Parts: sequence; structure tokens; C-alpha cells
Amino acid sequence: MLIPEEVRGKLESARVARLATVDPNGAPHLIPVCFVFDGSVFYTGVDRKPKRAGHQLARLTNIETTPKVALLVDEYCDDWERLWYVLVRGTAARVTSDAEHQRAVVRLKTKYPQYAAGMLDEGAPILRITPQRITSWGKL
Amino acid sequence: MLIPEEVRGKLESARVARLATVDPNGAPHLIPVCFVFDGSVFYTGVDRKPKRAGHQLARLTNIETTPKVALLVDEYCDDWERLWYVLVRGTAARVTSDAEHQRAVVRLKTKYPQYAAGMLDEGAPILRITPQRITSWGKL
Repeated sequence: MLIPEEVRGKLESARVARLATVDPNGAPHLIPVCFVFDGSVFYTGVDRKPKRAGHQLARLTNIETTPKVALLVDEYCDDWERLWYVLVRGTAARVTSDAEHQRAVVRLKTKYPQYAAGMLDEGAPILRITPQRITSWGKL
Repeated sequence: MLIPEEVRGKLESARVARLATVDPNGAPHLIPVCFVFDGSVFYTGVDRKPKRAGHQLARLTNIETTPKVALLVDEYCDDWERLWYVLVRGTAARVTSDAEHQRAVVRLKTKYPQYAAGMLDEGAPILRITPQRITSWGKL
């Protein structure tokens, strides 16, 4: 997938994204996530933020019945001339290969010192989001 | 619906939320939105941000087939001890009553000077989001 330079820049530098999944009743679910983009796929971990377990698990359950997800990267600003967003639509799956899991954990710990400091268990579930369409809007 | 004071505070003061809808193919769609909360329902307008029309229309189409939506209010911070979010799940409908439309427009223009300055047409479509469940997490 050809991704414009400015879109790639935002996807690489953003600290947070919002991940939408669809629950078994067909209703959307939405959560803020930390993530990394390796140039072709996204990884996000089910981490140990306190009290978060319940909501984190919803993601895992939801993608089993509906793997389609949306990931939004944006930044709000009261100067609306400077607004932008990048919307990634694709599919999510839990990473099962040990090698890929390890690569993703290393990337997450490199991007987020909080993870390196222990907020991500070595065996934490990792989701891979494979983009099918990336659209963007605004002043990227 | 009984909403804790600190949750209400966040819903009233947040400048941006992310709105997830489900498209006719069952895939989630996600967009940043400006909104107001009147204490019981949320209103968000389909405004005139340049080039946004296409994505704005997706929302309208999506809620016709699936009225279930999720609205997320959160703020990222590198100090993960201070993270929080409020997740609203409910249903969305286009406001059809003139009186309700006018009330919503007034509230939107009061909250956002950008709207008052002309970024929201008088006849712009307004969505009403009626919450069915509001959950929160973190340091509100």
C-alpha cells in the first residue's frame, strides 16, 4: 500500500489512536490505544493499565466475531484550520507467532518508555491491524 | 440516567470526541467530532469543515442502517497515571424537529465560537446521540 509521506509521518509519531471494533450485537465499541506502525501493519498491546482489563478484553472478543476495525489518528486544536486526521480501516487479528509477537513488543517498548518500564507483560496479547484503506483529511 | 459528577464534567468540557458508527457492510467507521452534551443527550453537527463532506455523510448513511454508535471522550497524556476516558454507547438519529434542531444549534454555537462565526449552516444536519450506557475509566 502506497502511503503518502505526511500520512506515514503522523502514523509513526502519534502517541495515541482510537480503535473501533464491532461487538457481537453489531454495536460499535471504542477505546484509546497505544500503538506502533511498522510501515505496513499496526500493533497494539493489551497492557496492564490498572482497571482496564475488562475493556481491553472486549477488543479481543469483538475481533473474533468481526475482524473489521477502524483506527483513527487525529489531534484536536481550537484552530480548525489546523485540524487533520488519518483513518485506517482494516482487519485485526491476535498475533500468534512468537517471532512476530516479540518484534511487536520490542517496537512498543521502544516507542513507549512506559511499556519498557514494565507496563507490558512479555506475554501480553498483541493485536495486528492490517490496513485495507487509509484515508486522510486536513492539514497533515 | 444517573451520571457521576466527574463524568458529567468531562462530557461538558471536552472539545472533541470520537464517534464510531457501523457501515452497511458491518465495518466500523470512526471520525473526530465536535459535540455538546445537554445533560441527557449529545448533539453533533455535520459542519462545513472544508473537504469533509464525504466523511460526514458516511455517518448519516451508517446510522440509517445501524443506529448504534459509540462516542469516546478521552485525553492522552504521557503520564499514564493520569489517563482517563468516558465511553458512551447509545443510538444516533438525525434531528428532525425544528425546535430541537434550533436548540442544538444554539448550544453548539455557544460552545464553539467557530460555529458561531459561520462554520455551521443554520440548516446543517444535526445528530442526536441518546446514551444507553456510559462507562468511564481512569483518573477523571
